[in-house]
Amino acid sequence: MIDFDTPDPEEIAEIPAPLPVGATIGILGGGQLGRMLSVAASRLGMKTHIFEPGENPPAGQVADRVTTAGYDDEAALRAFGEAVDVITYEFENIPTKALDILEELAPIRPNREALRISQDRAIEKGFIQSCGLNIAPHCAVSNALDLMVALETVGVPSILKTRTLGYDGKGQARLSSQEDAAAALEAVGNAPAILEGFVDFEREVSVIVARGVDGSVAFYDPGENVHKNGILATTTVPARLGENRQKAAKLAAQTIAEGLDYVGVMGVEMFVTASGLLVNEIAPRVHNSGHWTQNGCVIDQFEQHIRAIAGWPLGDGTRHSNVVMENLIGDDMDRVPELAADPANALHLYGKAEVKPGRKMGHVNRITGPAEDHS
Amino acid sequence: MIDFDTPDPEEIAEIPAPLPVGATIGILGGGQLGRMLSVAASRLGMKTHIFEPGENPPAGQVADRVTTAGYDDEAALRAFGEAVDVITYEFENIPTKALDILEELAPIRPNREALRISQDRAIEKGFIQSCGLNIAPHCAVSNALDLMVALETVGVPSILKTRTLGYDGKGQARLSSQEDAAAALEAVGNAPAILEGFVDFEREVSVIVARGVDGSVAFYDPGENVHKNGILATTTVPARLGENRQKAAKLAAQTIAEGLDYVGVMGVEMFVTASGLLVNEIAPRVHNSGHWTQNGCVIDQFEQHIRAIAGWPLGDGTRHSNVVMENLIGDDMDRVPELAADPANALHLYGKAEVKPGRKMGHVNRITGPAEDHS
Repeated sequence: MIDFDTPDPEEIAEIPAPLPVGATIGILGGGQLGRMLSVAASRLGMKTHIFEPGENPPAGQVADRVTTAGYDDEAALRAFGEAVDVITYEFENIPTKALDILEELAPIRPNREALRISQDRAIEKGFIQSCGLNIAPHCAVSNALDLMVALETVGVPSILKTRTLGYDGKGQARLSSQEDAAAALEAVGNAPAILEGFVDFEREVSVIVARGVDGSVAFYDPGENVHKNGILATTTVPARLGENRQKAAKLAAQTIAEGLDYVGVMGVEMFVTASGLLVNEIAPRVHNSGHWTQNGCVIDQFEQHIRAIAGWPLGDGTRHSNVVMENLIGDDMDRVPELAADPANALHLYGKAEVKPGRKMGHVNRITGPAEDHS
Repeated sequence: MIDFDTPDPEEIAEIPAPLPVGATIGILGGGQLGRMLSVAASRLGMKTHIFEPGENPPAGQVADRVTTAGYDDEAALRAFGEAVDVITYEFENIPTKALDILEELAPIRPNREALRISQDRAIEKGFIQSCGLNIAPHCAVSNALDLMVALETVGVPSILKTRTLGYDGKGQARLSSQEDAAAALEAVGNAPAILEGFVDFEREVSVIVARGVDGSVAFYDPGENVHKNGILATTTVPARLGENRQKAAKLAAQTIAEGLDYVGVMGVEMFVTASGLLVNEIAPRVHNSGHWTQNGCVIDQFEQHIRAIAGWPLGDGTRHSNVVMENLIGDDMDRVPELAADPANALHLYGKAEVKPGRKMGHVNRITGPAEDHS
C-alpha cells in the first residue's frame, strides 16, 4: 500500500464561514477605537452594536445600536451576545465572567487566549519568550522581599509595572536606586507587579499585523513611536529601520500571532537595540500606533480588523504615503483650527464631549510625501 | 477729497463663524450619500442627525440620531431643525414647504437657490447659459404642440426629459423620429419636460468642486464617466482630457458655484465635444462621480462637503492615486467575495437590506497606480 502524505481530515481545523454583508459586529468598549472600527465596518456593509458601561460613548455616534450596561450585567450581556454575529473588543481588560457568558452566544475574536495573555504582563512576557523572541530583563514581584530579589537580578534604573490593568503610563513607577523600592511599591498600590530593566534602545517601533481565520497574515510597515509622559505622542512611517530589521520585526509579530492562533489585528511594540529587537508589549486589538494606516494605506487597520474577524480576505497593507501620526491630547484640541487649515493634514477627532488633561481627543495624520517605493 | 477705492462695509457679506467640534449636522435623506457624509462628519468630531421618511435608512447605521418622518410632518421638521446646527441634504428634490420651515431654524447649505435651480431642468439650463457656459440644444415642452415646435428646433435624435424629479435615467424617453413624439410624451407622463438634442460627444466628464463660506474654492481632478442604462457605471481618474480642457472644466464648475453663491460640494457633469465642453447637469450635493476621492485623495468629497457647510477651511483636493470607481448595482453584490479578495480594491457597501435590480448597493474603488505627478 502506498503511503500518501495526506493530511488527516480531523487535523484540518475547519475554517469558519465568512460573515455575510449586513452582519452585525459586536464591539466591547465604546471609545475611539470602537468608533473607528464602527466606521470601518460600515464600509463593508456591516452594522455595529457597541457594549459600553459609560453614557454617550464616542462609538455610539456612528453605531447602529448601543447597549449601556456594566460588564457584570448578565442580562444585558446575554441580549448583546444574542444580537450580534461576532464579538470583538477595543481594550483587553474585559472581565472573565463577562467573556464566559458571551462566548456561548457568538465567536469572540481575537480569542480568549490572546486576552488572557495580554491581561497580565508576567504571563505575556513568559509567552513571548516561549515564542523564542527576546524581551527586556524582568522579574515578577508580589511584595517587598520579591522586589529586593528582583532588583538584584534586574538592577537599576528599572520600572515597576502592575501586572494587570496598566495603560498609557498608569500603574508604573521608576526606580533609580534600591532606596526607591518602598515608594515604587506604594505607587503601584502593592498590586502584583513586574520589575523591568530599562533598555538602552535606539528607538521604539511597532508592527501592526493581521491574521485571518484561514491563517493568512498581512502586515503594515513598522512605525516609529515617540512617547511623552508615558502616552504615545507620534508614530512616523517609514521607521528608521534597515531592511533586515524590518523583516525581523514582521516575523516576530507573525510568530506571536501564530502562537496565539490569533484572528484580527494586533499591535506589537518593540525596542530597537544595538544587539537586535526586544519585544516590549502586545495589544490584542487595533492600536494607536496603527492610526497612520487611515491615510497611508488603501485598507486601514480598522477595516483590516473587521475583515479578519468577519472571516473575509485580508486587505493589502501596502503603504502609499509617508505619514506622521500625532495624537491630540487634552488642550491640543485648541490647535484644531490651525491643523484643519493645513492641506497636508488629515484630522480624526473622537467626538468626546469633555477635554481633560491627558485624554486622547483625536489625532492628525500628516502626509509627508509618497512612499519612496510606491508603484 | 481723495477717492479711495474702498469697499462699502455693507457690501462685505459677513462670513459665518465655523461650527465647533461636537456640532450636529442635520442631513435630509438617509441613503448612501447621507451614510458617507455621516462617516466623514465623525472624522471631524461632529455628530449627525438624519431626517428620512423610509424606515431603517442606510445612513442611520452610522448616525447619532435618526428622525423617521415625512417631509410634510411639520412637528418632526421643527424638532429636527431645532436639534441641529446646520442642515444639508443628499438629494435635490426636497419639498419647498419643508425648506420654508427648516430655514427659520438653522442655516441650509448649500442654499435654497441652488436647490431651486437644480430641481427644474429648464431653469437649470437657463441659469447655466446665463453664466456664459455652453449647453446642448434644448427646448421646454409642455404639450404636444410644444413638442412639435421643439422637434423643429432641436431635431432628432433627441431625448425628452421631465423638468423635475428625474434621476438615474428615469422620466426620460428617446426620440429617433418625429413619429416617436406621442409615445415620448406618454413615457414622461405628459409632465412639463424639455427636449434635448443628442450631443456627439467624445466622452463625459464631471468636476467635483467645493466652495467654502468665505468664497474659497477647491477642486478635484475631473473624472471620466461611463453610464449604462442611464445609471453611472464607472468613473475613471485621470480623465482623458488635455490640460487646457481640465482648466476649462474646473473654471466652468467654479463659475457655476460662484453664480449660486454656493457653499458645499457640487458635481458638474460635462460633455467633451470636438468644439469644446458643454455643461450637462448640476448636482448641488456630493456626487456619485466623486466617490473615487475616498481612495484617491487625503480629504474626500464627503469630508470636503462637511468642512464647507461647517464653515471650516476646505481640505486639499490633490489626487495621490489613479482610481477606477465602479458602481455595484443589484446583482453585482454577488461579486463582493471576489472583489474583496483583490488587493487593489477598496470596497464601499451601503448597508441596504434588500438587493433590487438597478439599485445602487455599493461601489468599489480600484487603485490603478500612483498619480503620475504625485509628489
